[in-house]
Amino acid sequence: MKVAIIGAGITQFGEFWERSYRELITEAGVKAIENAGIDGAEIQSLYVGSMTPGMFLEQEHVGALVVDNAGLLPIPATRVESACASGGMALRQAYLAIRSGVADIVVAGGVEKMTDVSTEQATIALAGAADQEWEAFHGATFPALYALMARRHMLEFGTTEEQMAQVAVKNHYNGSLNPNAQYRKPIKLEDVMNSSMVADPLKLLDCSPITDGAAAVILASEEKAKQLCDNPVWIAGSGQASDSLALHDRKSLSRTEAAVKASKIAYQMAGVNPKDIDFAEVHDCFTIAEIMAIESLGFCEVGKGGIFTEKGQTALTGSIPVNTSGGLKAKGHPVGATGIAQAVEATLQLRGEAGKRQIKDAKVGLTHNVGGSGASCVVHIFKSEVA
Amino acid sequence: MKVAIIGAGITQFGEFWERSYRELITEAGVKAIENAGIDGAEIQSLYVGSMTPGMFLEQEHVGALVVDNAGLLPIPATRVESACASGGMALRQAYLAIRSGVADIVVAGGVEKMTDVSTEQATIALAGAADQEWEAFHGATFPALYALMARRHMLEFGTTEEQMAQVAVKNHYNGSLNPNAQYRKPIKLEDVMNSSMVADPLKLLDCSPITDGAAAVILASEEKAKQLCDNPVWIAGSGQASDSLALHDRKSLSRTEAAVKASKIAYQMAGVNPKDIDFAEVHDCFTIAEIMAIESLGFCEVGKGGIFTEKGQTALTGSIPVNTSGGLKAKGHPVGATGIAQAVEATLQLRGEAGKRQIKDAKVGLTHNVGGSGASCVVHIFKSEVA
Repeated sequence: MKVAIIGAGITQFGEFWERSYRELITEAGVKAIENAGIDGAEIQSLYVGSMTPGMFLEQEHVGALVVDNAGLLPIPATRVESACASGGMALRQAYLAIRSGVADIVVAGGVEKMTDVSTEQATIALAGAADQEWEAFHGATFPALYALMARRHMLEFGTTEEQMAQVAVKNHYNGSLNPNAQYRKPIKLEDVMNSSMVADPLKLLDCSPITDGAAAVILASEEKAKQLCDNPVWIAGSGQASDSLALHDRKSLSRTEAAVKASKIAYQMAGVNPKDIDFAEVHDCFTIAEIMAIESLGFCEVGKGGIFTEKGQTALTGSIPVNTSGGLKAKGHPVGATGIAQAVEATLQLRGEAGKRQIKDAKVGLTHNVGGSGASCVVHIFKSEVA
Repeated sequence: MKVAIIGAGITQFGEFWERSYRELITEAGVKAIENAGIDGAEIQSLYVGSMTPGMFLEQEHVGALVVDNAGLLPIPATRVESACASGGMALRQAYLAIRSGVADIVVAGGVEKMTDVSTEQATIALAGAADQEWEAFHGATFPALYALMARRHMLEFGTTEEQMAQVAVKNHYNGSLNPNAQYRKPIKLEDVMNSSMVADPLKLLDCSPITDGAAAVILASEEKAKQLCDNPVWIAGSGQASDSLALHDRKSLSRTEAAVKASKIAYQMAGVNPKDIDFAEVHDCFTIAEIMAIESLGFCEVGKGGIFTEKGQTALTGSIPVNTSGGLKAKGHPVGATGIAQAVEATLQLRGEAGKRQIKDAKVGLTHNVGGSGASCVVHIFKSEVA
């Protein structure tokens, strides 16, 4: 059965001390409903991705919170969590719910409210995405884990700090073209290189920020999509895979196997290969993560992600534009919302509504959403047309 | 498409300071795999229900944690959260995954490790199932919310404290017949009545305990179930519904609308009505919750749950045995595991493997799993045979 996105909504991403969790996700949901041109009462099920409202806000049970505040009672509401891949997983569950036949219009949202706590508290909360007993307890927070991966990538493949910095420069430029991005100011290579060291070799501008924000998409079965929508965006492939939670248990520190496996499934399902992808939103929580992502997704050879980026191949004008939205790096990274925000960008690009960052004639897009240091990965492939 | 349970596993429930979260869920999963007589490599997807490992253990991303520790990499692993209904929701997602066609053998687990923190910390963590901003922040913890419902039920229908106490007496008796139960000692009516007041009118023995434990079931498509299993337990109906998160927003304090709606869907899907149910596992987080549950599920008239219980209709020898396992009250309530533990009991009963608490000729069973004070509800109906 075919499934399509028929509506998409997103909030401004940023630091909003005056806005609540429920307010953000409700705004995104209402925008998605309005964008789909449907009535809320037509929605039959709700999924929401959120990583840790418990540790950020002492609030769990956010499926019920969201469906209630959105005025969508009494439909089923389920929260899905897979660390920073929570949004992508919520999208996948919504997709599966339609394929299962129990619903034909489903909303998938993602939300996180991260700035109400101190940076230290946020760091501890985010460390819950790693292995608490084997990593976080010993002080290995996320910048440290990705720094280990970066060092290994540099050692094995000669990747340079400047190549990583180039990811940040590109994504900040793209973010400057996205009115919803947290950071809308281009930066230069020396800004990244001169920014303060967080976890050697990763500097402040190699890291994605702490962000408040929400996003939502409305999914429909083929029949409903054709009936309700002039420009459905088809979910042509959905792949998910897992790897060991703790970094030290992986075969390789410089390769993300879950991404390789998830993308292989998605490519096969969509009947495409990496060369067919017109643009991709990948999980650049740190600059090195984007370099490893483009290798795992097959956009370039293993080990060549740094040079591929340096040559501009992933820029808006390159052979495979990556993170046209600004990515997690510049658009912002409200962790549970990120996977859905990627789907929103794919929807805008495939509809030709991405404004100044529009990729010309984009017909096939990919999203790549990662949990933790790579233990969870979900990849979706979207098409503006299906055979 | 038909879906069946082909294997079930559960740990001892109790207070296990010497056992870890990952150890508990891995034990349950291995038992389920052994019970199904399959190889772990045949499992294609994993769902795990867990309410708040973040607030209990500073560990999120438990899908990856569990699939990794169980040796099931690299299959997709997704955590589902809906407060105390997390287990039931995980079961439902596993069921939908099979119906969607992306997998034909899926494991659904549930786990919580609650006793590593102080009772105060556990109370705060559990309050995350309520509306943080409108309830928990103001001091309305769960005993208080259910006490409000109990008072209203007493006022409207004349339900007595003794009738509520009778739920505890029955469930502790049933628990005494369940080797995996946290409490395996029968209690008397006066024990409940004389126990210390927690939130008037609910006393200590009206409340379910804080528990460590895990449970798992293996689900299979009809084709795989028939091929692999001599005594599959069929999931004949699955219903889920939502209500307002905060109690004050409900139309009635003495009625749980989400349970009414979820059960209606499940009954319709299974082609049965309340009279056809041979036994039920319901969400007795407090004694009043069981009384409201049996009314919402249609086992007795609205308002008559107290007298129905008093007359012994829900006892092992009654017209509709409820909580043969001992329920949350005596078996224990490791919140994320509870919904799966209910499915394990249904499986044992329908296979005739429930030992001293076996219901004779049980052919149709029901499980009722609730999140928060009733904002989420998921109902499943199981049959030993399907047409």
